[in-house]
Amino acid sequence: MAELTPDDFMAAALAEARAAGVIGEVPIGAVVVKDGQIIGRGHNLREHAQDSTLHAEILAIQEACMTLHTWRLEDCDLYVTLEPCPMCAGAMINARVRRCFYGAKDPKAGAAGSLVDLLSDPRFNHQVQVVGGLRARDSGELLVAFFQGIRAKRKAAKQAGQSPEKQV
Amino acid sequence: MAELTPDDFMAAALAEARAAGVIGEVPIGAVVVKDGQIIGRGHNLREHAQDSTLHAEILAIQEACMTLHTWRLEDCDLYVTLEPCPMCAGAMINARVRRCFYGAKDPKAGAAGSLVDLLSDPRFNHQVQVVGGLRARDSGELLVAFFQGIRAKRKAAKQAGQSPEKQV
Repeated sequence: MAELTPDDFMAAALAEARAAGVIGEVPIGAVVVKDGQIIGRGHNLREHAQDSTLHAEILAIQEACMTLHTWRLEDCDLYVTLEPCPMCAGAMINARVRRCFYGAKDPKAGAAGSLVDLLSDPRFNHQVQVVGGLRARDSGELLVAFFQGIRAKRKAAKQAGQSPEKQV
Repeated sequence: MAELTPDDFMAAALAEARAAGVIGEVPIGAVVVKDGQIIGRGHNLREHAQDSTLHAEILAIQEACMTLHTWRLEDCDLYVTLEPCPMCAGAMINARVRRCFYGAKDPKAGAAGSLVDLLSDPRFNHQVQVVGGLRARDSGELLVAFFQGIRAKRKAAKQAGQSPEKQV
């Protein structure tokens, strides 16, 4: 069997992102990979759980820790469809993740180079190698379509005189 | 009944830190407060759960979200015995925490001014007011005593020819 590539793992993260979008969450997904195997998956569940910590990366890291029975995710790579926020970048440093592959840049909260660069900061006790822009268009289009859908629903609700959908 | 003060809430965070130390975790504790009431508590559980995300602040934020049935911790203050790391500072930004009171500075990983200053960064969509140094000596002494204990145990084990205690 052919070895899986970074593109394949990002496809798995994109599948997680779609799973979030289907249930009305902002479509962001992540997987953790070790030795060519996916050992943790996660998608954004902030609204469903009403828990601000439940980003895709946190859930994927938690599942990977459970899989390996250790909090040290050395030699593990994390794939996520959107550039991580400071919380998730910090979680990768804490978990000693080896590499972070991300899809679309996040100019509003990105902590892998856009607003701050936590993952490469040599002052922390661990650095995570970053590869950005992997299937960036697919990741970005998912987000754009999601927010266009939200706006269209709001507009339709307004025109029908109904109260707008819950803000996401 | 007299209103509780920031010192009282930091005392509750210190009690959480001691609860972590008793079970062999690095003694760090946190509470989330709204309208003078503690609505979330947490202490470091990284080793017991073998989960790198289970810092005191994350657990306290998660409990507060459950208490309020919302991921938005507006008008909430977080008290933590050690300056937050990037993950936990990021979690406070994501949760829209109003203020962060911390005890001891963390020169190795502090993200509230020591290494980076995420909480006050105006480029993020939310800023958290920071009050550092609240009962800093008590918080620091707990950590110093904990690591002295670890080193003493290791030394004793070495002298007795036993394998050293698991590294924390």
